[in-house]
Amino acid sequence: MTRILPCLLLLSSLLACAQDQATRPVKVDVSGAWILREQIFDEVQTHRMSLQVSRLTNRVTGQVGSSKIDGTISDSHVSLKMLTSNGRVIATYTGEAKDGGLKGIGDWDGTKSQWSARRPVIKPEGSPRTHTFTPTEFYRTFSATTPPVLHIFPGDTVRTKSIDAAGTDENSARRSIGGDPLTGPFFVEGALPGDALVIKLNRIRTNRDWAWSGQSLIGNALAPDYLMNLKRVRDFNSRWKIDTAKGTVYLDAPTNPLKGFSVPLQPMLGSVGVAPQGHNATRTIESGDFGGNMDYNQIKEGATIYLPVFHDGALLFMGDGHAAQGDGELTGDALETSMDIEFTVDVLPQKSIGTPRLENDEFLMAVGIAGSLDQALQTATTEMARWLEGDYKLNPSESAMILGSAMKYDIADLVSTQVSIVAKVPKSLLATLKHQ
Amino acid sequence: MTRILPCLLLLSSLLACAQDQATRPVKVDVSGAWILREQIFDEVQTHRMSLQVSRLTNRVTGQVGSSKIDGTISDSHVSLKMLTSNGRVIATYTGEAKDGGLKGIGDWDGTKSQWSARRPVIKPEGSPRTHTFTPTEFYRTFSATTPPVLHIFPGDTVRTKSIDAAGTDENSARRSIGGDPLTGPFFVEGALPGDALVIKLNRIRTNRDWAWSGQSLIGNALAPDYLMNLKRVRDFNSRWKIDTAKGTVYLDAPTNPLKGFSVPLQPMLGSVGVAPQGHNATRTIESGDFGGNMDYNQIKEGATIYLPVFHDGALLFMGDGHAAQGDGELTGDALETSMDIEFTVDVLPQKSIGTPRLENDEFLMAVGIAGSLDQALQTATTEMARWLEGDYKLNPSESAMILGSAMKYDIADLVSTQVSIVAKVPKSLLATLKHQ
Amino acid sequence: MTRILPCLLLLSSLLACAQDQATRPVKVDVSGAWILREQIFDEVQTHRMSLQVSRLTNRVTGQVGSSKIDGTISDSHVSLKMLTSNGRVIATYTGEAKDGGLKGIGDWDGTKSQWSARRPVIKPEGSPRTHTFTPTEFYRTFSATTPPVLHIFPGDTVRTKSIDAAGTDENSARRSIGGDPLTGPFFVEGALPGDALVIKLNRIRTNRDWAWSGQSLIGNALAPDYLMNLKRVRDFNSRWKIDTAKGTVYLDAPTNPLKGFSVPLQPMLGSVGVAPQGHNATRTIESGDFGGNMDYNQIKEGATIYLPVFHDGALLFMGDGHAAQGDGELTGDALETSMDIEFTVDVLPQKSIGTPRLENDEFLMAVGIAGSLDQALQTATTEMARWLEGDYKLNPSESAMILGSAMKYDIADLVSTQVSIVAKVPKSLLATLKHQ
Amino acid sequence: MTRILPCLLLLSSLLACAQDQATRPVKVDVSGAWILREQIFDEVQTHRMSLQVSRLTNRVTGQVGSSKIDGTISDSHVSLKMLTSNGRVIATYTGEAKDGGLKGIGDWDGTKSQWSARRPVIKPEGSPRTHTFTPTEFYRTFSATTPPVLHIFPGDTVRTKSIDAAGTDENSARRSIGGDPLTGPFFVEGALPGDALVIKLNRIRTNRDWAWSGQSLIGNALAPDYLMNLKRVRDFNSRWKIDTAKGTVYLDAPTNPLKGFSVPLQPMLGSVGVAPQGHNATRTIESGDFGGNMDYNQIKEGATIYLPVFHDGALLFMGDGHAAQGDGELTGDALETSMDIEFTVDVLPQKSIGTPRLENDEFLMAVGIAGSLDQALQTATTEMARWLEGDYKLNPSESAMILGSAMKYDIADLVSTQVSIVAKVPKSLLATLKHQ
Repeated sequence: MTRILPCLLLLSSLLACAQDQATRPVKVDVSGAWILREQIFDEVQTHRMSLQVSRLTNRVTGQVGSSKIDGTISDSHVSLKMLTSNGRVIATYTGEAKDGGLKGIGDWDGTKSQWSARRPVIKPEGSPRTHTFTPTEFYRTFSATTPPVLHIFPGDTVRTKSIDAAGTDENSARRSIGGDPLTGPFFVEGALPGDALVIKLNRIRTNRDWAWSGQSLIGNALAPDYLMNLKRVRDFNSRWKIDTAKGTVYLDAPTNPLKGFSVPLQPMLGSVGVAPQGHNATRTIESGDFGGNMDYNQIKEGATIYLPVFHDGALLFMGDGHAAQGDGELTGDALETSMDIEFTVDVLPQKSIGTPRLENDEFLMAVGIAGSLDQALQTATTEMARWLEGDYKLNPSESAMILGSAMKYDIADLVSTQVSIVAKVPKSLLATLKHQ
Repeated sequence: MTRILPCLLLLSSLLACAQDQATRPVKVDVSGAWILREQIFDEVQTHRMSLQVSRLTNRVTGQVGSSKIDGTISDSHVSLKMLTSNGRVIATYTGEAKDGGLKGIGDWDGTKSQWSARRPVIKPEGSPRTHTFTPTEFYRTFSATTPPVLHIFPGDTVRTKSIDAAGTDENSARRSIGGDPLTGPFFVEGALPGDALVIKLNRIRTNRDWAWSGQSLIGNALAPDYLMNLKRVRDFNSRWKIDTAKGTVYLDAPTNPLKGFSVPLQPMLGSVGVAPQGHNATRTIESGDFGGNMDYNQIKEGATIYLPVFHDGALLFMGDGHAAQGDGELTGDALETSMDIEFTVDVLPQKSIGTPRLENDEFLMAVGIAGSLDQALQTATTEMARWLEGDYKLNPSESAMILGSAMKYDIADLVSTQVSIVAKVPKSLLATLKHQ
Repeated sequence: MTRILPCLLLLSSLLACAQDQATRPVKVDVSGAWILREQIFDEVQTHRMSLQVSRLTNRVTGQVGSSKIDGTISDSHVSLKMLTSNGRVIATYTGEAKDGGLKGIGDWDGTKSQWSARRPVIKPEGSPRTHTFTPTEFYRTFSATTPPVLHIFPGDTVRTKSIDAAGTDENSARRSIGGDPLTGPFFVEGALPGDALVIKLNRIRTNRDWAWSGQSLIGNALAPDYLMNLKRVRDFNSRWKIDTAKGTVYLDAPTNPLKGFSVPLQPMLGSVGVAPQGHNATRTIESGDFGGNMDYNQIKEGATIYLPVFHDGALLFMGDGHAAQGDGELTGDALETSMDIEFTVDVLPQKSIGTPRLENDEFLMAVGIAGSLDQALQTATTEMARWLEGDYKLNPSESAMILGSAMKYDIADLVSTQVSIVAKVPKSLLATLKHQ
Repeated sequence: MTRILPCLLLLSSLLACAQDQATRPVKVDVSGAWILREQIFDEVQTHRMSLQVSRLTNRVTGQVGSSKIDGTISDSHVSLKMLTSNGRVIATYTGEAKDGGLKGIGDWDGTKSQWSARRPVIKPEGSPRTHTFTPTEFYRTFSATTPPVLHIFPGDTVRTKSIDAAGTDENSARRSIGGDPLTGPFFVEGALPGDALVIKLNRIRTNRDWAWSGQSLIGNALAPDYLMNLKRVRDFNSRWKIDTAKGTVYLDAPTNPLKGFSVPLQPMLGSVGVAPQGHNATRTIESGDFGGNMDYNQIKEGATIYLPVFHDGALLFMGDGHAAQGDGELTGDALETSMDIEFTVDVLPQKSIGTPRLENDEFLMAVGIAGSLDQALQTATTEMARWLEGDYKLNPSESAMILGSAMKYDIADLVSTQVSIVAKVPKSLLATLKHQ
């Protein structure tokens, strides 16, 4: 029996040991935190799971999502029941502890699932870290199937760049087909479906001296009789000059009436998003609950973005920089240019949000994204009401007093299939309320 | 013939005299400016008309709207042809100069009209004047049939008061049924259909120490699933205290979480409008091209409002004061209270505007009012494009550069049948453009 | 005292008798049915009221709307309290019985009202009657201030005519300015606010051999990019020929590709409506809960229309006949022509409906009218759900089974400020349900 | 060297031959039809290409899309210029004929592309064929990355089955997670981007005796005040019985009022779609220009569907059968059940359509799919106008006459992110028009 003892002590090489002892039963300790992955047909879900093992009885208890776990472990074989809070069995899992992980078959009222569990990844030494990432490929689709370009941890900062909406970089070199090619995706370790991803934009600055824009107003922002009588202008030059010294942007070769016309330089990112739900793959010119092309001119240096997480690692993309943009991105393409970007990520575990949220020094902001402005406004108002009701424990009349007396709306984006409206509440007014 | 002399002297009774002298022709001088009123079936239209008479030939020439006039006068009988710019006759008028006016019958390609003309009213001595008007009756309908309470002239200033949306005045006395009872209508001499009425709000101040608001959010601003799960709060006390010293408003008897919650006092008028087109009579809770219940929180002290004129005298109403209001008036009734009002009017002859316009120190603003936000936004954007294209002689791509890079939207009103969105352009950016 | 006795017996000449006895107090019998009219500030309301008098005690009890009445009568002086169902006093009325009516002052918690009551008008001998009405004036405004052209009773039938949308009659004579001039208003005796007016269209037939239509599609039914590239056709001849023998309509002078193109003759009324709520006056080209220009091609011979009543007598207008019309009236003006009309009216007392309802042999139909199609659909669906839930005592899931499996929608009207969608349920499917 | 002769003759085995002769340069004949595939960054495009080779000069001419081709071939090396119609060079391609195909590098004004070309696949002997396909896997995403389950040719017929929206098959066995799992994708040989895919539904029949539906109306079809006051019914049993003998469907365990309520059995497919544009992957509960979950109750036996093709092979999916459905699928889930399906496909090369089109014995139908009903209607009307203007060479006023007098709308689908409206024109009315 002498060989066994060192084995039991050497827990750091549990696997080798277990294999070594395959001929004889050995208790594997499955206690602690896990990431559970289960697949039923083509549906994959990932959850945080915690297990506790009673050494004496081999009973395993635990929690996954809102379900309790009750089961047994015998050597490496586990058998787990998932129970509702009032004790009804909703699924039974059997499996094996192997290679430091768990793996097996589930039964959901007759429907089979494959499941596996792995230990959460540990933050590396020296965290939080700052990464400098120079993109070489750019993606025009938000998708969970795109391989991540970088794995980062909550607290980490990334310094990177984005090219413009037509695929041209800071050296005016063509790097991609147009249509909002983005930088990323960044895999944020520890971000799981049901969490909120936090992205703090530390620095968003233009990195070349020109931008280009659309040449005319988008049709859906104009009345039919205006459109029917519109005399379109041919060959209008809509290239802009970026003057960082003066902090302004102006047309490079203005027509006579616009000589002297300039607007403040206000660098922003048109698109910040994560991989959308399930098998969805969405063009980066679109937006949705995953964020994306919200084209909101307040997504700029100093802003913090909260996005729902739908996949392991969240898979964060960003880009589509604008040197300046009026509300709604009325020329279809705003003042498109390349950007230097620095951002810091964080994860709020199990913070369920229905739609992107933003925050800056002044405002809490909820972004409503939908197929019409009327519906986008409903989404934005509702999300803001829920935000206040949730975080400050207000009833619907109490939140109504705040929204009715002080909430403001911005119209963020009018381009593409979905439009977006932002509901915003001054943070100063919430100072006396008790955050829960 | 002794009877003739007193007649010639008594010019104040021209009519009697003219009739008396019917046997002898007398030339009436119809030269100069007129206000023409014509009626075809139940349709009444009013226009500025100018006539010139050649003493030698009795030929009458002139202009009304875009039509040229060519005719003759013989004694008091006039015969006029209305011609298009290329000389086609569109109507013939015959009539008589009588009692200082003109009156007769028109023929529009077989359809008869009654027409009459009067001399424009002259501004009184001492103009511009300041009127103090204490309202005793309040109207809940925008209508041209409401008798005016005061006749004023361009340049005049009016000091008056409004009661709150429920009909309660500054002494907390009930003065009307609820539903936005307004002060007015003020008849602005010289304002004619096709003109723009200008209303400068010099002073808009609350004049009592309380307001009341709705108790919950309006349904159309909320998502269906929120509404289906809403637990409404009973007997919520939504009376507010106005603290003019501190410049804040807060709930009078707040529930626990809202103790300490207050918003800045920002007095505004929910409703400023003129009599709507034709025979329309519209509840004052509604809005439209005539203005009305736009519920825009920037219609406050310092703002200038431009409204299209549809009737002789414009017939201006105002009221529905709010001590403060978030965008959209989300509680249906904002912080409703009574107001002290001072405003100055002006008239821009033949300045055709499609929808209400506003101006303050910072912005030009066009109000889009329609049955959905999507349509209201189209109206607002289009009106702003037309404003810039008209006043600064820009082509559609030039106006697109300004709108695309710098225009902002506000969502003004979400209550009632029509909603409103405001498109606004910073005036500072237009400084280098040449106003035509 | 002998003279008093016959008086008390001769109740049929109450008034004469009361006057006769004016020198001496006489008990006036106020028992029975009344029409109560009350005015608070500028708000007028009319209700059915019933009173019962106890001969012994002079106590007066009764009902008005949902309020109970409790009061006294002393000679001709009445004093009445209005009470909620649980006995709380909401108003006190005092007044006098005089000239067969009642008249006095009310007090609503400090706010004064004027009230009066009259006996309901009795149906004349020979009812129901058929009236032939030849209109001489036409109205382009739905308004309660328009004097009625004919007083009719429930059950009565009217034979009349309408002119076309441009004001031209069956003899091609110009009778009005264009803009949907309508025939009426007809005052329906006994129709009171809160009732539903029933209009059965017995006969709707074209009465001349031509129609005219718009020449191009309306802008709001077309996509922006189509509008921006539209090459409008000049001088297109859109006069149509009505061939009643063949039952078809075709272009009078078709361009080459449309030679041979014809559509079935399907005469309909574009506009049927009553005077709108309160002081509102609305152009006849508009629609709303009062009906109006719904432009629904199923409002034709054989259809029954139910409209909410907002004013004493309802004040029914109709016209805007179309020889044929696709859904939505896409050319702005459909195949406009004059009509022979025969309809029969009825009144459903206190049948509260939120929006116009229709019925024909096949369908129950609810018309949703709003500022956008999305909202119009919500109104139509909701009204149909309420119709089924009310008339068949269904819960929301039961009505959902019917609507989800069998309801159809028609898009009725896309022209003007409000659009309309019709929700319709086949009556055959409701045959087994129990009407309450 | 006798072996060479048969080789040159045996052009049917060009590839084997070419390899055989690799040591000596041989002229490869690249004349004829090709399928060109090119990739620029992550953008892939496929086009039909035709080449003609002059034997004498080695000059290669041809056509791809709207571009002319002019180049040379030397042995197996090709060098091609793509030119606009007026001769401007837009790209140059160089490459090699190898293994029966072509392959090389392109240069688009400095941007590199990879290109390759293959010969079109030839229809097999015995075409058209009828395939019986029994699905074993079901997909809940429209995506070009899903491997096709069957390759079919234009003219071929497929007999297959679909499971219900919750994943249950005709034997009531669970086969997939819910959310409209579909059968397919079918790869249609010869279908290329820019073509229209034609799907004739020969037979759509329920194949089990039960269905299930949602239990309440969807929120977005109801007015806010109805929703706020809704008393939801718990545990309502919405399982339906399908009685194919009687051709009716009725609740399995109806509540009292619905005993006797039944609706006609009208089997339809809720979802028929192709792989969407580019890298998009879209849940099968969604719809778009690719078709998908249009939930239109006229997509049933006898209907023909036209869908735009975005990828090589089109990749056709279908399923989501409903035993019956009212307009809009108001219960969110209609009467969901499994289906027997038989359909025949065809391809219309380079028939560009903007949105799905349908046809049955009675109507031409264009499906407008968008984020709001107002926008969906614009899309549907526009597509129908374009259909008529394109196929019958009508000007906009001529198409307006048809749409205005005779077009009808159906509201197809109100569920999910996009809603759909169908514009339909009776084919009988088009009989006299000349199809181009």
